[in-house]
Amino acid sequence: MNDFEFYNSTRIIFGKGSIAKLSKRVPKKATVMLLYGGGSIKENGVYDQVISALKKHNVIEFGGIEANPDYATLLKAIKQARKKKVDFLLAVGGGSVIDGTKFVAIAAPNADVEPWDILTRGLAKELKQALPLGTVLTLPATGSEFNHNSVISRRETEEKYSFASDLVFPKFSILDPETTYSLPKNQLRNGLVDAYVHVTEQYLTYPAGAIVQDRQSEALLLAIIEMAPAVLKMDPPDYNARANFMWACSNALNHLIGVGVPQDWATHRIGHELTALYGLAHAESLAVVLPWLLWYKRDQKRDKLLQYGYRVMGQKTQKYSERIDRTIEATAAFFQSIGMPTTLTAFGIDPDEAAARVQARWEARGWVQGEYRDITGADAAAILLLSR
Amino acid sequence: MNDFEFYNSTRIIFGKGSIAKLSKRVPKKATVMLLYGGGSIKENGVYDQVISALKKHNVIEFGGIEANPDYATLLKAIKQARKKKVDFLLAVGGGSVIDGTKFVAIAAPNADVEPWDILTRGLAKELKQALPLGTVLTLPATGSEFNHNSVISRRETEEKYSFASDLVFPKFSILDPETTYSLPKNQLRNGLVDAYVHVTEQYLTYPAGAIVQDRQSEALLLAIIEMAPAVLKMDPPDYNARANFMWACSNALNHLIGVGVPQDWATHRIGHELTALYGLAHAESLAVVLPWLLWYKRDQKRDKLLQYGYRVMGQKTQKYSERIDRTIEATAAFFQSIGMPTTLTAFGIDPDEAAARVQARWEARGWVQGEYRDITGADAAAILLLSR
Repeated sequence: MNDFEFYNSTRIIFGKGSIAKLSKRVPKKATVMLLYGGGSIKENGVYDQVISALKKHNVIEFGGIEANPDYATLLKAIKQARKKKVDFLLAVGGGSVIDGTKFVAIAAPNADVEPWDILTRGLAKELKQALPLGTVLTLPATGSEFNHNSVISRRETEEKYSFASDLVFPKFSILDPETTYSLPKNQLRNGLVDAYVHVTEQYLTYPAGAIVQDRQSEALLLAIIEMAPAVLKMDPPDYNARANFMWACSNALNHLIGVGVPQDWATHRIGHELTALYGLAHAESLAVVLPWLLWYKRDQKRDKLLQYGYRVMGQKTQKYSERIDRTIEATAAFFQSIGMPTTLTAFGIDPDEAAARVQARWEARGWVQGEYRDITGADAAAILLLSR
Repeated sequence: MNDFEFYNSTRIIFGKGSIAKLSKRVPKKATVMLLYGGGSIKENGVYDQVISALKKHNVIEFGGIEANPDYATLLKAIKQARKKKVDFLLAVGGGSVIDGTKFVAIAAPNADVEPWDILTRGLAKELKQALPLGTVLTLPATGSEFNHNSVISRRETEEKYSFASDLVFPKFSILDPETTYSLPKNQLRNGLVDAYVHVTEQYLTYPAGAIVQDRQSEALLLAIIEMAPAVLKMDPPDYNARANFMWACSNALNHLIGVGVPQDWATHRIGHELTALYGLAHAESLAVVLPWLLWYKRDQKRDKLLQYGYRVMGQKTQKYSERIDRTIEATAAFFQSIGMPTTLTAFGIDPDEAAARVQARWEARGWVQGEYRDITGADAAAILLLSR
């Protein structure tokens, strides 16, 4: 096991009707900025519940944070937060709204720092203050409600950057499984795949003797597979399945399973390009990469693929090459079973073109990714060529 | 899944040589009280490492905290902490030292409150301040380094009380697996059993639809079984096994697997009496109760025993009564395989006498325990009568 630090100070408030508990969790005399996305919270009743819980608070609103939150939008929020002397940020939405709110939290009170430098020059770790934030999660997927990470896009320049800081752990995150009832099926499917791949990025690398973390990762994969059919039940939705869905997504990226072990994240890095170039949803972009990356890296990842196959996928043949084949197939089959395609061609994307474009973008940045830092732009292209 | 709150603000600093990091984690100008136990830390080098890391700090010492920390001893520490205006407490030891330090932390700054009332009148939740504390763990078992619980004994009156407060989460806990190298084999065995039973108390109850928590509990049980033989290796010790041992114990009682599910703890309540009456080590007392409690409660715990048997113990027969038999036997066999007896008679204790004495003590307190709150003193006695 590698040395590590683990820290996660977010309080999770979980259950039916838990949005009403906001009134006690948001500081009484705070000027609160309520940040949200495209307005779906006004249709599904979440906005009303939040406003009702905060009726004694001074609330200003900032709506319109888009999927893959845009730097330009967030600059406006930062400006407004400073002008209105906001003391507390409340993100109501999914990972994009929460990630965007984290950026506002760290940029707004540090007026002497250029916000862009926080993303590009690694300043987040040096800053000493951030506005406190809380979240009301409505779209389980990214785990942002339970970690200190944030990913921000700059559409103007087609760039995507991330930062991490203990200052932006949400003070609390409210998880009411009923907020998922109005989600369309494809967002549920996306959330399941997103959480699944968050786990595999921290697990399918090389053995580091982390018996505990390996079992914890396998636990989440087994849980996601077990719950998936019930999570997709729509009419009526299954409360308990949605509760497990929400909690699995939060646990998949709360730092716990990733401590003391190598991590990969190449699937995410390739996927991000596919989102930028072709507009695939984040989870869609992961599903068309992961099986092929595992195939391409099957020798380096051999030991963990065998373990994953045996323990999670029930593939117990002692013919190891065959077990790896069956295990990767079973991974793709699981995604397909919940309605998620696993090839570029299924989305009408030409693998040859995608491979060339992603390779060019990786090489322009000089990227080398993966747990061994050996996946080059040419490797990313080779992986995408398999996705047909 | 039941509604819940989860919160755990302890920073874990894990790895070889991590005690040296103390210097940066303890506030610079603090007067530090260093609390420890019987002095084993002076023999195994841990004391020297701590003193060396704190050479620029003002440190006063309080040694002699005993196993099952005694109220009378801790009153002396509280008095001294007040007199010397201590700002920070550093617990160096196992669960008893850490539990005792948590009590000092909450009692010392609340001079207007009778310390005994914190334990007996549930005052801990109302108090607003505690001294900050950190820990250096040397004996993995209780998980106290990663939770907000504390159990205190009063030898004078043969009483044992616990309290819980978010104010006593350690600010940090330093986990260096090499500190376990000097532990005798029976303390390693005890730690493994203690962690295992911490998990079963939160898992072997009735199904609550907690797919995630069930899998996480099973992950820890599987991990403990997997690592146990290597943890007991003495000459030389296996660093990686000790690292997993330490991390498994911390994860078994850090609140995560217990949220949203029913909990039992009757094995602990019976075991505590056996420790008080016969001086069994805590883990020994759990091992002579758990298999028999599972046997006695096999109908109520049927569904979870079948699941545990299938997923953890590999008992897959569809003859359910037989699967439960084999599962309970496998649990006892695991304990025995690491040198832990599972009957009162193996410790030279007469089950008839123990049953009568424990029943009398439970009834004197009017205790009814278990996940259904239906285990009476008579049931506790019936369970102990099986332990032969």
